[in-house]
Amino acid sequence: MSSLYLAAGLAGRTASLTSSAIRDLLALTARDDVISLAGGLPATDLIPIDRIAAAAEAVVRRPDAVQYCETSGHRTLRSVIAAREAHARGGVPVPVESVIVTHGSQQALTLLAQALIDPGAPVVVDEPAYTGALQVFSIAEARIESIPITDTGMDTDELERRLTAGLRPAVVHTVANFHNPRGVTMSEQRRRHLAALADRYGFWVIEDDPYGEICFDAMESGIEAPPLPIACHSDRVIRLSSASKILAPTLRVGWFVAPLGVCAAVELLKQGADLCGSSMTQLMAAEMLADTTWLDAHLTVLRREYGARATALTSALAAEFGARLTVSRPEGGMFAWASFRDGTDSSELLDSALDHGVAFVPGSAFASAAQYRHSLRLSFAGSTPSVLKEAVRRLGTAHSASARVL
Amino acid sequence: MSSLYLAAGLAGRTASLTSSAIRDLLALTARDDVISLAGGLPATDLIPIDRIAAAAEAVVRRPDAVQYCETSGHRTLRSVIAAREAHARGGVPVPVESVIVTHGSQQALTLLAQALIDPGAPVVVDEPAYTGALQVFSIAEARIESIPITDTGMDTDELERRLTAGLRPAVVHTVANFHNPRGVTMSEQRRRHLAALADRYGFWVIEDDPYGEICFDAMESGIEAPPLPIACHSDRVIRLSSASKILAPTLRVGWFVAPLGVCAAVELLKQGADLCGSSMTQLMAAEMLADTTWLDAHLTVLRREYGARATALTSALAAEFGARLTVSRPEGGMFAWASFRDGTDSSELLDSALDHGVAFVPGSAFASAAQYRHSLRLSFAGSTPSVLKEAVRRLGTAHSASARVL
Repeated sequence: MSSLYLAAGLAGRTASLTSSAIRDLLALTARDDVISLAGGLPATDLIPIDRIAAAAEAVVRRPDAVQYCETSGHRTLRSVIAAREAHARGGVPVPVESVIVTHGSQQALTLLAQALIDPGAPVVVDEPAYTGALQVFSIAEARIESIPITDTGMDTDELERRLTAGLRPAVVHTVANFHNPRGVTMSEQRRRHLAALADRYGFWVIEDDPYGEICFDAMESGIEAPPLPIACHSDRVIRLSSASKILAPTLRVGWFVAPLGVCAAVELLKQGADLCGSSMTQLMAAEMLADTTWLDAHLTVLRREYGARATALTSALAAEFGARLTVSRPEGGMFAWASFRDGTDSSELLDSALDHGVAFVPGSAFASAAQYRHSLRLSFAGSTPSVLKEAVRRLGTAHSASARVL
Repeated sequence: MSSLYLAAGLAGRTASLTSSAIRDLLALTARDDVISLAGGLPATDLIPIDRIAAAAEAVVRRPDAVQYCETSGHRTLRSVIAAREAHARGGVPVPVESVIVTHGSQQALTLLAQALIDPGAPVVVDEPAYTGALQVFSIAEARIESIPITDTGMDTDELERRLTAGLRPAVVHTVANFHNPRGVTMSEQRRRHLAALADRYGFWVIEDDPYGEICFDAMESGIEAPPLPIACHSDRVIRLSSASKILAPTLRVGWFVAPLGVCAAVELLKQGADLCGSSMTQLMAAEMLADTTWLDAHLTVLRREYGARATALTSALAAEFGARLTVSRPEGGMFAWASFRDGTDSSELLDSALDHGVAFVPGSAFASAAQYRHSLRLSFAGSTPSVLKEAVRRLGTAHSASARVL
């Protein structure tokens, strides 16, 4: 933000805010001549536009679809989500009252931060972390502590050492399934361990799960579905998800499932924040999520296509860079994580990459303590396999050009 | 909020929040046997459902209608709003960049409070005040100061006396057109005075204008349109409005127009709060607001119908209560304000009223300093004239029953 924009009369805390590096990058990469692997957007060509249009047509003339709705969300949608959540938890019943619908799961994060975090309180995040969470906790004036992610998720042994040494977080935030940006999934053992630590030390776990449903085809690759949610192992877990990645971002339908005390506090904050969500888009989401025959077929297509795109990207990276680049092997979600072993600085590479018509997010965007100077996040979701191959070819050219300059 | 719900581990500031009395009342009055004059909802029977369905049909298959949109709002909608705002300001150009679209104007209030108000800073509100604003400023931990409303709007002479005595507010919030709950409109002289005070003392004015377009028919009643916006007289004015009252609440489309420094700060806060709004409902709103032939005809119907309902309510109140009740004479908007002159306590009357099948909001809900024990807000918007007459008949019975008990 240029100083030109820092008008007099802004609140003190506002003046220190900075824009998410990714959001700024998205503006730069909206050019037609750039293939962007930078965004966190689902594939536009896989958004079920006809089904969405049918859902709009089905609900829009209902009087309860055009008025204000309940702050906690339209009852119909909350019931559908509660039933799906019970299924995801292996059949444990989930009361409708424990589901709160929010304006995307980003709003859930913001309101939970307001409800649970006093200024200065410690909050534990993944290292590397989802940038949207870093931004929310920074606005909440939390003291951010990070715990490294390994191939089996957040290192709960390290967390336990820090707790033993005196760390008392208000909240631990983690993306347990198909991590953004690392791509890994937390093991069942670590889920149980994290839940036990939450019970013992009395912190809240925010289990942020936007990608859990996008699990690639087990038949082809020997991939197993993620373990049961962390929420199955403790009452101190608040589980977040969203319709943005499996239906469409435009619905702005996210939700969380939490103990009633947390739901009541967030409902009060949401009254002040925006009164309520859109009854129309909530009823549209309910219509589609309840149409399980259609939804199952749609998810099958998403999983197969995203899996094919992930394979196309990682194969092309292996062919282009060989041993100079280590690349994660995504089993779901939207992202691959890669790290140069030849000393390449990913932030410096980005300038050259944009010149050659390809964009990614440098690892530094996800850093709270470590720097990830040699790493980058690549989204395979939004491009077809042939476009991904071309993107990697451009990245290779940019890397060669950048290396020559060095 | 019962203590049962106050789970351990909530942030300190959360534990002291209380629900809006109106929101709680709305839950009580959702019963079929109660005629509710309590809500702030626009008339469901006047929401243009067919036009909304056509707008959905027109936009929903556009790729940019289903993805994430820009944090500041879809460019198409921002352009339409900028053009309408320029017209409202008597032809002064309004740059697109000075328009930010929010999730209803309640979100605009919340984000502006975050951007402009440090905890403990003084904020001036109308007395009586819009309860949603009181809630937002309370969450922002502002020190709330109130200035009485008279028949020509906020008493700016009293404000000037307080400023001279040392009051230094960060923000002055006022509803200048068809005030909620008082129904009055600020005179041009007071608009100019408030703008001059903002320039002299360096505070921001939030000119909250959800009802300005609902101005009753001048032909029938000699009513004049409201004066030009306060924003015409100073650059320190942030003007808020919304599509909720003229199109439909379900769109969740609100907006504000402000200097670029304020827009930039709020855009950063909105990134953290919810990333962006719904591109679909924003494009639907743009489609309808740009269809001026249809919109003008629709507004004509709204103004005529709301005007007829206002007259039906105030006439019935005069017939039922005579000199025992003074009633405002609404010239626009959705509310009448009434005050008992016979000592009736409106909070006590509410219990009896609910027993007799009619609801209103007691004056105390709008109080920050004064108490308004004898006053009540009645919404005429949501009921037809015959239902309003029945509501007043029930109110009369409740008043008699309540008086007998006393």
